[in-house]
Amino acid sequence: MTSVLRTDYQRSVADYWNNERDPVNLRLGDIDGLYHHHYGLGEYDPSVLEGPAATRDERIIAELHRLETAQADVLLDYLEPVAREDRLLDAGSGRGGTSFMANQRFGSFVDGVSISESQVAFANGQAMERGVSDRVRFHFRNMLDTGLESGSLHGIWTNETTMYVDLFELYQEFARLLRHGGRYVCITGCYNDVTGGRSKAVSRIDEHYTCNIHPRSEYFRALAANGLVPINVVDLTAQTMPYWELRAQSPVATGIEEPFLTAYREGSFHYLLIAADRI
Amino acid sequence: MTSVLRTDYQRSVADYWNNERDPVNLRLGDIDGLYHHHYGLGEYDPSVLEGPAATRDERIIAELHRLETAQADVLLDYLEPVAREDRLLDAGSGRGGTSFMANQRFGSFVDGVSISESQVAFANGQAMERGVSDRVRFHFRNMLDTGLESGSLHGIWTNETTMYVDLFELYQEFARLLRHGGRYVCITGCYNDVTGGRSKAVSRIDEHYTCNIHPRSEYFRALAANGLVPINVVDLTAQTMPYWELRAQSPVATGIEEPFLTAYREGSFHYLLIAADRI
Amino acid sequence: MTSVLRTDYQRSVADYWNNERDPVNLRLGDIDGLYHHHYGLGEYDPSVLEGPAATRDERIIAELHRLETAQADVLLDYLEPVAREDRLLDAGSGRGGTSFMANQRFGSFVDGVSISESQVAFANGQAMERGVSDRVRFHFRNMLDTGLESGSLHGIWTNETTMYVDLFELYQEFARLLRHGGRYVCITGCYNDVTGGRSKAVSRIDEHYTCNIHPRSEYFRALAANGLVPINVVDLTAQTMPYWELRAQSPVATGIEEPFLTAYREGSFHYLLIAADRI
Amino acid sequence: MTSVLRTDYQRSVADYWNNERDPVNLRLGDIDGLYHHHYGLGEYDPSVLEGPAATRDERIIAELHRLETAQADVLLDYLEPVAREDRLLDAGSGRGGTSFMANQRFGSFVDGVSISESQVAFANGQAMERGVSDRVRFHFRNMLDTGLESGSLHGIWTNETTMYVDLFELYQEFARLLRHGGRYVCITGCYNDVTGGRSKAVSRIDEHYTCNIHPRSEYFRALAANGLVPINVVDLTAQTMPYWELRAQSPVATGIEEPFLTAYREGSFHYLLIAADRI
Amino acid sequence: MTSVLRTDYQRSVADYWNNERDPVNLRLGDIDGLYHHHYGLGEYDPSVLEGPAATRDERIIAELHRLETAQADVLLDYLEPVAREDRLLDAGSGRGGTSFMANQRFGSFVDGVSISESQVAFANGQAMERGVSDRVRFHFRNMLDTGLESGSLHGIWTNETTMYVDLFELYQEFARLLRHGGRYVCITGCYNDVTGGRSKAVSRIDEHYTCNIHPRSEYFRALAANGLVPINVVDLTAQTMPYWELRAQSPVATGIEEPFLTAYREGSFHYLLIAADRI
Amino acid sequence: MTSVLRTDYQRSVADYWNNERDPVNLRLGDIDGLYHHHYGLGEYDPSVLEGPAATRDERIIAELHRLETAQADVLLDYLEPVAREDRLLDAGSGRGGTSFMANQRFGSFVDGVSISESQVAFANGQAMERGVSDRVRFHFRNMLDTGLESGSLHGIWTNETTMYVDLFELYQEFARLLRHGGRYVCITGCYNDVTGGRSKAVSRIDEHYTCNIHPRSEYFRALAANGLVPINVVDLTAQTMPYWELRAQSPVATGIEEPFLTAYREGSFHYLLIAADRI
Repeated sequence: MTSVLRTDYQRSVADYWNNERDPVNLRLGDIDGLYHHHYGLGEYDPSVLEGPAATRDERIIAELHRLETAQADVLLDYLEPVAREDRLLDAGSGRGGTSFMANQRFGSFVDGVSISESQVAFANGQAMERGVSDRVRFHFRNMLDTGLESGSLHGIWTNETTMYVDLFELYQEFARLLRHGGRYVCITGCYNDVTGGRSKAVSRIDEHYTCNIHPRSEYFRALAANGLVPINVVDLTAQTMPYWELRAQSPVATGIEEPFLTAYREGSFHYLLIAADRI
Repeated sequence: MTSVLRTDYQRSVADYWNNERDPVNLRLGDIDGLYHHHYGLGEYDPSVLEGPAATRDERIIAELHRLETAQADVLLDYLEPVAREDRLLDAGSGRGGTSFMANQRFGSFVDGVSISESQVAFANGQAMERGVSDRVRFHFRNMLDTGLESGSLHGIWTNETTMYVDLFELYQEFARLLRHGGRYVCITGCYNDVTGGRSKAVSRIDEHYTCNIHPRSEYFRALAANGLVPINVVDLTAQTMPYWELRAQSPVATGIEEPFLTAYREGSFHYLLIAADRI
Repeated sequence: MTSVLRTDYQRSVADYWNNERDPVNLRLGDIDGLYHHHYGLGEYDPSVLEGPAATRDERIIAELHRLETAQADVLLDYLEPVAREDRLLDAGSGRGGTSFMANQRFGSFVDGVSISESQVAFANGQAMERGVSDRVRFHFRNMLDTGLESGSLHGIWTNETTMYVDLFELYQEFARLLRHGGRYVCITGCYNDVTGGRSKAVSRIDEHYTCNIHPRSEYFRALAANGLVPINVVDLTAQTMPYWELRAQSPVATGIEEPFLTAYREGSFHYLLIAADRI
Repeated sequence: MTSVLRTDYQRSVADYWNNERDPVNLRLGDIDGLYHHHYGLGEYDPSVLEGPAATRDERIIAELHRLETAQADVLLDYLEPVAREDRLLDAGSGRGGTSFMANQRFGSFVDGVSISESQVAFANGQAMERGVSDRVRFHFRNMLDTGLESGSLHGIWTNETTMYVDLFELYQEFARLLRHGGRYVCITGCYNDVTGGRSKAVSRIDEHYTCNIHPRSEYFRALAANGLVPINVVDLTAQTMPYWELRAQSPVATGIEEPFLTAYREGSFHYLLIAADRI
Repeated sequence: MTSVLRTDYQRSVADYWNNERDPVNLRLGDIDGLYHHHYGLGEYDPSVLEGPAATRDERIIAELHRLETAQADVLLDYLEPVAREDRLLDAGSGRGGTSFMANQRFGSFVDGVSISESQVAFANGQAMERGVSDRVRFHFRNMLDTGLESGSLHGIWTNETTMYVDLFELYQEFARLLRHGGRYVCITGCYNDVTGGRSKAVSRIDEHYTCNIHPRSEYFRALAANGLVPINVVDLTAQTMPYWELRAQSPVATGIEEPFLTAYREGSFHYLLIAADRI
Repeated sequence: MTSVLRTDYQRSVADYWNNERDPVNLRLGDIDGLYHHHYGLGEYDPSVLEGPAATRDERIIAELHRLETAQADVLLDYLEPVAREDRLLDAGSGRGGTSFMANQRFGSFVDGVSISESQVAFANGQAMERGVSDRVRFHFRNMLDTGLESGSLHGIWTNETTMYVDLFELYQEFARLLRHGGRYVCITGCYNDVTGGRSKAVSRIDEHYTCNIHPRSEYFRALAANGLVPINVVDLTAQTMPYWELRAQSPVATGIEEPFLTAYREGSFHYLLIAADRI
């Protein structure tokens, strides 16, 4: 295992997340202690926009959080079945939201890795509080080089984290980690090769997060090159748009809502779920 | 374009289909003139098994046909949108069932190709009868070398025909034929790399049809190598099993029902839909 | 080294061989304690079919065994020269026949691996009886992952065992095991890319043995991809046909004789020897 | 040859350049009729910043133009030798600056291609005015699919245009166009794989121009895959920085100066020249 | 089709053969009008070295010629069966020896290509004399780019000519030319990857003929990459050594005999026959 | 790590260098204890050819040595910056000349590897004499398999040593050894793909040194395949020619001067520097 942060780019990404205190993540997480770093799925309840102004923000925030939790639930559906003694990896685990949900649902072991030391510390703190630190652990490690044992994992997911890394390197590591027949689930934003190169809206997202959004084709080439075979691919674009429309009207909007909505509407960007098996 | 039948293998497949008069295909097609060569999707109506014995067979046959038509409808859903002036290819078009459904639904041009001259003649006869021979045409050609114009097609499908050909050759031809952004939809049975090599049940199917069922991984490698990028992958296995259970009890059972049910149940075989875009 | 049996497919193959008590293997082996699991080479003596009916079966069985032993002798010819201190691997060693012949001829060390525990036990018993258990050892291991030391082997052979595994995985393991300049010898049945896909006769063989016969081309692509360079390739088809013709008339015929003879005669199947060097 | 504009992305790039009237390009070009769409090389004369305020802008603009012309001269140095009857391609020819310089220097034929119809019209107008329209011609074509004859070209260059296209597709077309031994010269900005993914400064440039800056490694992989072999690679970063420092102080600054300077200074971005031969 | 001579290297090879008047080729060919440019196979008759000194040279020359003709006969054995209407290609046809033997044996059409205009003229002259110029024709063409029709050939051979070209380019052209199932036969000297890089003796041969002897591995990689699948590989080294031993004692020895004998004896060089099928 | 000498070829190269006592290397090295095994760069001082005959040889030798040292200085320029605690590898270190210069310039650690035990002993002796044996060490090891730790090196160079090995194997080992961002510098003679195969002059050099000169293209393909990305490529041909012209007139000429000059002049051979980064 080499050092966790290998490049200036990785150091800048780590800095960003070490210093991030974005209300869209923190205020939502405060609701029930599941801190997410991903977007939501499903229709929002339009009534949250109506009623007393005093609690409107609160209602919207609760609704956004509900949609984000729903997204993680969809992701976990595609990991099933998972047994209590199975080991899972949350690659790019942020403040731990999906990891805790997985442990809650399956009882299984979960390792999370992140290159943000603050996130790792925060998430391990949550694990203590929740009394699951014997089963859910977060590590300051690079998902390209986790140091975990070969063939030891039953499942891996990446919940909107693949845009920070080279997919061929990532899936080589995942292929090493998963046992034969292990499952990988990915939810990601990817740009659409059919509409061509990265559109201006997509570049704006890249710039906002210092990330490198991949074309859809790259996912399938990198999976094929590393013995990971799709069994389900779902275009979630239509299901995530309500989340963005609500968020654009929320007090925790960050300004990146418009590029997302534009990119989805012009068809230059997909919100995609891929479930694949290690062969 | 080289000769349509290039190998002994292709000649034996052509012979099989030239001489095939299987009631499971003919009696079902006679109902409404849509002759299918593929399996069905969806729950069957259990009442068809009950009631007067005299018409039981007829009821079952009608129900099997309904499920097969439903399957073709699902396939066509993933081709949408298609405009009236678009050109589509039914690669391995059999007696033309899906081609006619596509023309009926979209109004578009459909070319079907088959290496069975009898099937081509039959299907062109149907086109005449239906008064669509200006828009739906069947050709005695090899789908590996169709002779159609490069970049001329809006969409292509293969409805359970890919097990007769090398996927890399096939998708190279499809990549040539589709315009940028064109859509390919495949429904196929494939064996499961996770359970390993072709099981005994899968080999029995191969032997029955003189076909060469591919592993699931082969589809994704061949697509990736030819600029065809998945946007949807659906595991239809659970949805096709009722069809087989009904068919096993039908008067048109061919004996291959048991290997199919065994293969699906043991997990060594999938019924898979893939929709992909040409980039 | 992962677990020996990794997939359902491997488990079904192991079951088959654990339970196999086929007279064509046992009765022939009983003659001189060389139990083969492969076919024969060379003209049979037609006189075995004549003479007293009482001993006709015995004569045929002895003759079949002579041809099978001759086949193993041809294989070993292509391993030469081998020194007494060299290490050899019999990959898919069955009941040990070829391993004992190699040790007898060269004096060298032989390791055999098989995924059938019964076969391993049987063969180790034979080694004890023959007093060569210090030099010839059989292991319950997967030939895709032998756990043997890198670069430790002078030679490897597969005597009709490659149809159970992926050739790219297999030759990657062999490339790891052989020292620079080490020799690999393969005798196998493969289908003929020139006649096209697997013919019905070939599928029948696959189904009989739950195996996955590869096309000829696959061998050469997998060798080339793994630094194994042919020095001899011999089409043994004509030399193996007499064996099958005799066996078809023998009391130990299993019913698979006809598909073999058909496949060889129609040209859809080869019996091939490949000798290659590790570079 | 397919249609010139194949994707939404290409259409948006074409729109950008069709409507672009950027003084940094027009005012500089007005000086001597060489309209460039690339950056400059070499030290600027610091005296242009001093002296009478009234003509300061004019002095700076003239100096920027001098550095841009010097850049094109460096590019052409690496094309030598070129004979009067040789054919050259300016791939992404903009308003034609480098094309005219090449014709002036070598006397040779130059074809320029651009997906901006306005640029093509403008450049052909310039060719008329200069009386070289029999030797220098501009075409509304996609450089990925020029429609020019295979093997017809002595040399090709791309002067800061490769960030709009896939390099593998581009160099496949160039390999088709160049005769054996033909020369390709590229000047480009590329991001540095050593510092990692696209930095925030690089993403800002991408967003500004709706372009897709490639990593340095991509150039060498795409060249190697298409029979284009480097003979010179020059890191021009240090030589282009003075241009940007002057431009940042100029009246024609567009706001993109700071991201360029940041990217160059942090080492995440190179200004690179590659000269390669077609083999 | 590009120009026949594309590089300085090809021009120097053409010059060599245009000016070559080597008695080892001419005096042997004079015997019966079969002018060979390859070596021999089989044991020589030792009696030719004895007897009257006056005719010793003549006896040796006749014997060398007999062995060279025997070599061509072996090559043609591996092309069989060939029908009278089949088309064959002699790639690097020299003065036409093997071409005439093929036509004599099979009655078929033979096209020979050579980059030596003198050889082409000479061979066409021979064809006239022999009255076979309607069936055997020689062309001044590059075997990398023959201009012959795709899929038009039943068989191709290279008799010691592959060391002048890149094998990947060559086999791509051959794959284009051969019909499905067509046969390619190669006899060549190749160096042995097992003994390592080109030995001094091999380099001396390269320098003598301005050729580029390939490693054995290159043949199999280039075949595999171009759909050419071996069916026979024969190491002819032991069978060609007597020829060299006799030639070393002959009046037509050129000085290159010693490097050949050294290279063969030290194992750094093989004389190899490969027969492969186009799939 | 396997044995240092793996093939006959490597053993013959080792023998050559173990026994080499070439004055062109020894007499030049005697001047200041920097024993080089590479050629020189830059204009020679023509005055060394004039003046008193008695010391003419000495003057020429000193001048040749000055040019060789200048070459090593150019190589080291492209390694910069190097810190005192960095580790460097001299791959094919000969008698240690460049290693000592690197240590002198950067103060850093240098490991040299050579397959000539005499050279290793000689160079370690020099290190003792120079009092740098704690920082500069030479090892009897194969540069294809150095046994050094993965990711441990800041820089590697090959100074005219790559023609003895397969470049893909070599750069795989270098990619393993270099840390992310580490630098590789190569100076080498390579033949020119544009002029075609190895010319007679190039083959003469191969034969003289029992080496295997690679085409230029091979370097870039092997680098690209192993994550080594060029940042500078310099054609040094013109700068090395004066050295050869002087050496041809020197008392230490070995006879190989003419082939070098011919090859450079006819354009079939380059003297090339490549600096690349590990990504």
